[in-house]
Amino acid sequence: MNAQDCLQILREIKDVAFATADGEGRPRIRIIDVMLAEDNRLIFCTARGKAFYRQLTDRPEVAVTGMNRRFQMVRLEGRVKKLDHQRAWIDRIFEENPAMRDVYPGNTRYILEPFCIEDAALEFFDLGVQPVYRESFSIGAASGVESGFMISTSCTQCGSCQSICPQRCIKEGKPYRIQQEHCLHCGLCAENCPAEAIVRRRSIC
Amino acid sequence: MNAQDCLQILREIKDVAFATADGEGRPRIRIIDVMLAEDNRLIFCTARGKAFYRQLTDRPEVAVTGMNRRFQMVRLEGRVKKLDHQRAWIDRIFEENPAMRDVYPGNTRYILEPFCIEDAALEFFDLGVQPVYRESFSIGAASGVESGFMISTSCTQCGSCQSICPQRCIKEGKPYRIQQEHCLHCGLCAENCPAEAIVRRRSIC
Repeated sequence: MNAQDCLQILREIKDVAFATADGEGRPRIRIIDVMLAEDNRLIFCTARGKAFYRQLTDRPEVAVTGMNRRFQMVRLEGRVKKLDHQRAWIDRIFEENPAMRDVYPGNTRYILEPFCIEDAALEFFDLGVQPVYRESFSIGAASGVESGFMISTSCTQCGSCQSICPQRCIKEGKPYRIQQEHCLHCGLCAENCPAEAIVRRRSIC
Repeated sequence: MNAQDCLQILREIKDVAFATADGEGRPRIRIIDVMLAEDNRLIFCTARGKAFYRQLTDRPEVAVTGMNRRFQMVRLEGRVKKLDHQRAWIDRIFEENPAMRDVYPGNTRYILEPFCIEDAALEFFDLGVQPVYRESFSIGAASGVESGFMISTSCTQCGSCQSICPQRCIKEGKPYRIQQEHCLHCGLCAENCPAEAIVRRRSIC
């Protein structure tokens, strides 16, 4: 599993959700096709008349997610960039995604503009396995993000966290240790630690 | 088709995307289960340890979207409210969504808190038909939103817009008229109107 695999999952789901913030910082969302996923880049397009286009131009940040039929989710948080050679990209996108011709026949396709995401934090989260499994990646200049919780050295090894964890992903030790790859980030251990030894890592979501 | 039908589509898709804005106004996203859709309300839950929970508490605004296998999309923009009688709601949610027991066994379920959306603008958008079809609704105190474009009385009836529209949804008249229910909101007509008669309505996305 690597960052390109995550992009490939989004490409296979194809119709994924893209979130932006509007001029007032309110969340906005819509389904967008992932047109290409190659060379650690995700490529999509939108029409110049759409509010999505305006939001991307005003503040080129997006959060993207999709889930496949095996309950595997990918989340992405990244920056968006307009691509040069717009018409050539749109032609390539239509070649690889021929159903687009039904929506934008003939030359109407050029109302679309191509964008790419090449700097992003990525998270893979598999709810189809037990215990759940997650892994983080990044592409381009973005750094990966450590999310969820960790057990600090204030741990008194009382075992409360281990007994309460819904995914049974806390292991004994000095201090006890959360198996990050299996953690739900639910916070139940942190709420119930008598030594208040369980603290938040920076979360991507 | 009405607002409750839209909520029902999201409930049937079940795993839909929820967008929020974080403390810095950046878009955030994740897949969330629609647990119940009844009485013009959409009900979901999340764990107190999640960044999503914190975002909802700080700024109770969400945008939600999902697409079913027939290429029908629903979008929602609304306000989120915590529900009273939390444990009773969580029990009801687990009764109606028994797979939740695998993720949060036993009493660990009470790390979850129930939320509802009862004031929201909704949009139904069907890409599975030609021409595309869209319709807007609202629930609670939210008002519906007029999005896309309209042709003003500056229209000179030259027909440019009609000939260029990818969905062929502009009709002759004084002025010409966009069939809003079939419009992509791509903006091609507006870009090509020699009289600059085509203007933006307020968009929800």
